[in-house]
Amino acid sequence: MKLIGYFRSSAAFRVRIALNLKGISVEHASRHLRKGEHTAPDYVAINPQKLVPALVLDSGQVLTQSLAILEYLEEIHPAPPLLPRDPVDRARVRSLALIPTADIHPIQNLRVMNYLREKYEQTEEGAFAWSRHWVETGFDAYEASVAKDPKTGAFSHGDQPTMADLCLVPQIFNAGRFKVDMTRYPTIRRIYDSCMKHPAFDAAQPAKQPDAES
Amino acid sequence: MKLIGYFRSSAAFRVRIALNLKGISVEHASRHLRKGEHTAPDYVAINPQKLVPALVLDSGQVLTQSLAILEYLEEIHPAPPLLPRDPVDRARVRSLALIPTADIHPIQNLRVMNYLREKYEQTEEGAFAWSRHWVETGFDAYEASVAKDPKTGAFSHGDQPTMADLCLVPQIFNAGRFKVDMTRYPTIRRIYDSCMKHPAFDAAQPAKQPDAES
Repeated sequence: MKLIGYFRSSAAFRVRIALNLKGISVEHASRHLRKGEHTAPDYVAINPQKLVPALVLDSGQVLTQSLAILEYLEEIHPAPPLLPRDPVDRARVRSLALIPTADIHPIQNLRVMNYLREKYEQTEEGAFAWSRHWVETGFDAYEASVAKDPKTGAFSHGDQPTMADLCLVPQIFNAGRFKVDMTRYPTIRRIYDSCMKHPAFDAAQPAKQPDAES
Repeated sequence: MKLIGYFRSSAAFRVRIALNLKGISVEHASRHLRKGEHTAPDYVAINPQKLVPALVLDSGQVLTQSLAILEYLEEIHPAPPLLPRDPVDRARVRSLALIPTADIHPIQNLRVMNYLREKYEQTEEGAFAWSRHWVETGFDAYEASVAKDPKTGAFSHGDQPTMADLCLVPQIFNAGRFKVDMTRYPTIRRIYDSCMKHPAFDAAQPAKQPDAES
């Protein structure tokens, strides 16, 4: 298998953590998003959605959308699990995973920030203020969802990493770039600390990828 | 079970279709989003994410995020299936479902449009132009993903409705409100026509809900 990603892509970061946790070794390739390499014809032929990541299977079939890839990896390689067993608990984990995946990241990603600069003449700081607002709105929701729930453990759900943590951690890296005040989110910070002590998360972080830039 | 939704919410619409398809009867309740009823303390106590829908189980447990609810319904009530059997096909359906769910709807929903009006002094038409842009970006991706793929049938995947269609159809209703030119998307339109002939989709549409307004 080959994962086509980008060091700073939150969505690719989620998949890198999953591969590390499950001990699945893949070839890595990169498309430079700021240079627009994800819109080049040879990539669009692979992924007409023009987004990273894409997971190219040995059969040549291509999987897209990070959450769909995480569910696929869980189905073909169930150990260690990224989802609990009980259907209600699985729904809790998936709901948490969707806060960054649907309600935060798509609103603050590169193409939206570029659009704000071009159409609304926003400066870099203006675009950052936009992103900060939506990260905070989403983290308010995440914090409120995990803070008092007895199902929250060292990680977002219990004491082992789940799909929720895989989606949360990359969003925290973005939050740092946008200068979000993380002191508002003590439970998220505690979960983040648990995750970053785990080698699967640490090795997946943007700065440790071969295509990393400062 | 009780579904707390809103007639015009795309996310609640997805869940209504799933319940209809699977023949699951639930009590329906509504929170008026334009009146801000989803941020009232009694609702925040149920769903701290301050979004609809929420599915309240008979046990009192609350499920949130429409895709997590769809996956739950699929797990506890697998027939008729919303996902195919093969893991690669399941990934295809989930990836398609995520185009409206993650890449379109969160960028064009009510709270983002309100923010554009307040912070960037956008008129109603300005906010609509924003939403139209992101619907078109997402529909370009969806159309490109389904148009030439032999796995596309009468529906997005084969000849039975899947999770992908449940997420696509509500987005097409929103596209109509934003005056998106749908002639650009012949495959999406064909799938939409298949869906709307199906009573489960038809009965779930906004105008047919008890809380509908013109």
